[in-house]
Amino acid sequence: MTRYKLTLEYNGTTLIGWQENIQGPSVQSLVRDAVFKFCQQDVEVIAAGRTDAGVHALGMVCHFDIVGDSDAETVMRALNFYLIDSPVAVLDCEIVSDDFHARFSCTCRNYRYIILNRRAPVIMDKNMVWWIPRPLNVEKMQAAAAKLVGNHDWTSFRASECQAKSPIKTLDKADIEICDMAYGEKGEMQGQYIIMNFSARSFLHHQVRNMVGTLVEIGLGKPFDIDEVFAAKNRSAAGPTAPSSGLYFVSAEYANND
Amino acid sequence: MTRYKLTLEYNGTTLIGWQENIQGPSVQSLVRDAVFKFCQQDVEVIAAGRTDAGVHALGMVCHFDIVGDSDAETVMRALNFYLIDSPVAVLDCEIVSDDFHARFSCTCRNYRYIILNRRAPVIMDKNMVWWIPRPLNVEKMQAAAAKLVGNHDWTSFRASECQAKSPIKTLDKADIEICDMAYGEKGEMQGQYIIMNFSARSFLHHQVRNMVGTLVEIGLGKPFDIDEVFAAKNRSAAGPTAPSSGLYFVSAEYANND
Repeated sequence: MTRYKLTLEYNGTTLIGWQENIQGPSVQSLVRDAVFKFCQQDVEVIAAGRTDAGVHALGMVCHFDIVGDSDAETVMRALNFYLIDSPVAVLDCEIVSDDFHARFSCTCRNYRYIILNRRAPVIMDKNMVWWIPRPLNVEKMQAAAAKLVGNHDWTSFRASECQAKSPIKTLDKADIEICDMAYGEKGEMQGQYIIMNFSARSFLHHQVRNMVGTLVEIGLGKPFDIDEVFAAKNRSAAGPTAPSSGLYFVSAEYANND
Repeated sequence: MTRYKLTLEYNGTTLIGWQENIQGPSVQSLVRDAVFKFCQQDVEVIAAGRTDAGVHALGMVCHFDIVGDSDAETVMRALNFYLIDSPVAVLDCEIVSDDFHARFSCTCRNYRYIILNRRAPVIMDKNMVWWIPRPLNVEKMQAAAAKLVGNHDWTSFRASECQAKSPIKTLDKADIEICDMAYGEKGEMQGQYIIMNFSARSFLHHQVRNMVGTLVEIGLGKPFDIDEVFAAKNRSAAGPTAPSSGLYFVSAEYANND
């Protein structure tokens, strides 16, 4: 058996998410089907993160084992060939040791959330951002984001169906930056992108989208206090879940020898 | 009569281009129809540039006249309301004087061409870039682009159906920069965007796409010499026409009092 580590890009708009399910095309099933077409072996494909329907990935990592010794280059070419016309592409393929595990070996997961904050409806970035037409106070959002960093009980920010044993997790990074549109001189009229980067060893279900939903309420002027939201340990104390369209799994990090 | 200047964003993928035509939806017809729904007046909408099918705009400027004195804010809201679910949005609307003309008053047009240069197929940017899987030598492309700047006879770079009286034009800017993908550490495996910015008072038909097609041939190692291509004054001396999907009309500039 040879273990392969893939780095994937996908547009989640038309997908039901990472996980296989009878209800529609998933990243897991598309990759598994491509592997089957390549080598007629039915594999289990394990990812660093199981993204929801509509969530995108710029660098999702996954692994699977096949019998044989095809080199990584051949596997990458074959999978991209069989994935053509799907919303999934293989950016990289490596042969890794048997103790590499895309999910359990992962030491850091990086997510990004992109908001388009302008009055005009979203055109270029349809399905790829959260369009918010009302002005957001980004400074207030940045101050609140700084309070999210650290070790906390995330009960107020996790989905009711979250299966993690403990709600205690450490968030390592919650940065928010404004990215002016790359065209025109009049930033004010044309609006801005608000790019939010989050990093942690692991996240709870819907944690990023619930943090973003809360930060946006703060940006719109609602009087949420992050300390109080944590203290409430109650999902209803935080803001709503942000739409999946603005969320990207950016990258997964592993210890050097992986 | 009141003259309105609009700044438009559009995704050209499903459009036949700027110009009205029986063969499908054009930006001109979509905007005209929205104006008609707003005020029941049939206007002529005149643009700074008549983009081809599949070409996008981040800041196209156009104008039209209507009877009445609706303020710019009202017109912008109404047009965006009637354009909802179309690939066109109004980013800005201003009332301008009767001697403003989107096409004839324009002193500078800025175009951008975006190439995705990586082996993996295009996913996020489908229809929005030119995907080139073979490696491009960007330094050679930059050196060639520098030779395009200036006053030249562009016969080798204009479409055979170009209606301009003279092939003599001045290109003010032809910059090429590499934009690493915003994710992952391994730029080499994940590829890069090549962003090309062109500015001139005016361009000939297909001039940008023919310049890009020629620069890409140079980046792929073909021995084109820009001086010789100009001297040939023959379309067949230059490279092929680059696809419309990578081309963006970025902005139109006007004298200060417009």
